Amino acid sequence: VEGFRFSTEIAVRFAETDAQGVAHNAAYLVWFEVARIEYLARFRAGYKGLQADGYEALTTDAHVRYLQPVFFDDRVLIHARCIDIRGARFRYEYVLERDGETVADGSTRHAVVDRVTLKPTRFPGWLAEEIARAEASKD
Amino acid sequence: VEGFRFSTEIAVRFAETDAQGVAHNAAYLVWFEVARIEYLARFRAGYKGLQADGYEALTTDAHVRYLQPVFFDDRVLIHARCIDIRGARFRYEYVLERDGETVADGSTRHAVVDRVTLKPTRFPGWLAEEIARAEASKD
Amino acid sequence: VEGFRFSTEIAVRFAETDAQGVAHNAAYLVWFEVARIEYLARFRAGYKGLQADGYEALTTDAHVRYLQPVFFDDRVLIHARCIDIRGARFRYEYVLERDGETVADGSTRHAVVDRVTLKPTRFPGWLAEEIARAEASKD
Amino acid sequence: VEGFRFSTEIAVRFAETDAQGVAHNAAYLVWFEVARIEYLARFRAGYKGLQADGYEALTTDAHVRYLQPVFFDDRVLIHARCIDIRGARFRYEYVLERDGETVADGSTRHAVVDRVTLKPTRFPGWLAEEIARAEASKD
Repeated sequence: VEGFRFSTEIAVRFAETDAQGVAHNAAYLVWFEVARIEYLARFRAGYKGLQADGYEALTTDAHVRYLQPVFFDDRVLIHARCIDIRGARFRYEYVLERDGETVADGSTRHAVVDRVTLKPTRFPGWLAEEIARAEASKD
Repeated sequence: VEGFRFSTEIAVRFAETDAQGVAHNAAYLVWFEVARIEYLARFRAGYKGLQADGYEALTTDAHVRYLQPVFFDDRVLIHARCIDIRGARFRYEYVLERDGETVADGSTRHAVVDRVTLKPTRFPGWLAEEIARAEASKD
Repeated sequence: VEGFRFSTEIAVRFAETDAQGVAHNAAYLVWFEVARIEYLARFRAGYKGLQADGYEALTTDAHVRYLQPVFFDDRVLIHARCIDIRGARFRYEYVLERDGETVADGSTRHAVVDRVTLKPTRFPGWLAEEIARAEASKD
Repeated sequence: VEGFRFSTEIAVRFAETDAQGVAHNAAYLVWFEVARIEYLARFRAGYKGLQADGYEALTTDAHVRYLQPVFFDDRVLIHARCIDIRGARFRYEYVLERDGETVADGSTRHAVVDRVTLKPTRFPGWLAEEIARAEASKD
């Protein structure tokens, strides 16, 4: 998918389906999160490293467009990118693809907070730079 | 909350919390669904009645704004309304309130489909009328 | 159900169903937990009160027998009792009933731990007494 | 782990943790299911193939022993084996391992049913044979 340099794949779990026979709408937010964790795992110690450094990221907004139903055991490729890092805030965009077809897309907004006080705190500079570099890289 | 005539209450389950100590962001989409089911339960046989009549409603879009974290065992009042019924499509809006404070809001879009073919089909006329009447009623 | 003095009701959520059209097997453990929380809510400040006092209860064992499938929107009565309180350990038993028919039963084992160190600690004496009194009471 | 010839790995999702900071007890049943699906994927078209052939497997019993807490992003190796195939019934056993330490174990019982009528039906002979062969194989 154009504009995305990172992707990770999930298989739809049986527990994620519902009585309509498709993946439940809430599962997509879990998959977005799985993609964010994998995305960050490329930078130093990933999200666990950020937690160890005293940070936590809260989700402040989520949007999903469900374009095609997704079924048990489908392999879904989640393209993700982190953009718009400003102060404590940042955003992720996602495109979900099955066999080359876009089946959903969406975005989430987040705020970096201090792990103890839960007060907003600046996005770590080194990570912003590494992400900017990764997103700017030629394929 | 102004403009909403229906609400239902949930208690945040321990299973819905995450290691940040707050309700997980995906739980809100489950709560929205609980509110839709309760909303429809006021009209004839509710969602199960619609299924018995051969209908199913797919979720085509979901949006959540997380304004304040919500904790284990919090009582959250979910205000919901069904609006913009057009052809097969309709929309829900939600406001989540804890102790009089708005902690989240959001909306979902849906399409009525034939239960077997999953093809879009017109929103049942009788239900559109009953919802319009309920939403227009004075308190 | 004989031998049970406490029960609470849940409605099966659509999100809890799976592509077999029935409630997913993992949902039962969430319902058991909902029942435990409601069970404890009768004593002082409930589970949140225990947390405030510095306790947490870990689940060390869970067993479920699925006797009849349970469907979307079914009302399920969860009978629960807390038994075998010994040192840091205690056990719950459950019977799930729909329209007077037993649809599942099970049990869970737990250990009281210090909330910070996660080390086992004695079950609070006042609560053991109140539970013993509640379980021994005539209806 | 002795006696197990199959294993698959999961990473604990953030959504699977709870406010105790550990993986929620219900997540283990989802992981057991993930392991069963992977286990069967080695034989012809896996569980989806069984569904295509008109079968469905219901869970009739589940047991989990939680020995050590499991945390966000932990890699957990799930050892699984299918045993005791008799008529429509069969059983799975599981051992969960993190960094060489057993953190949980458990078992589930199942019944093969006709996908439409949900009536018990004999476990497919070819699959019973292939499983017996796989479980009997030298490493």
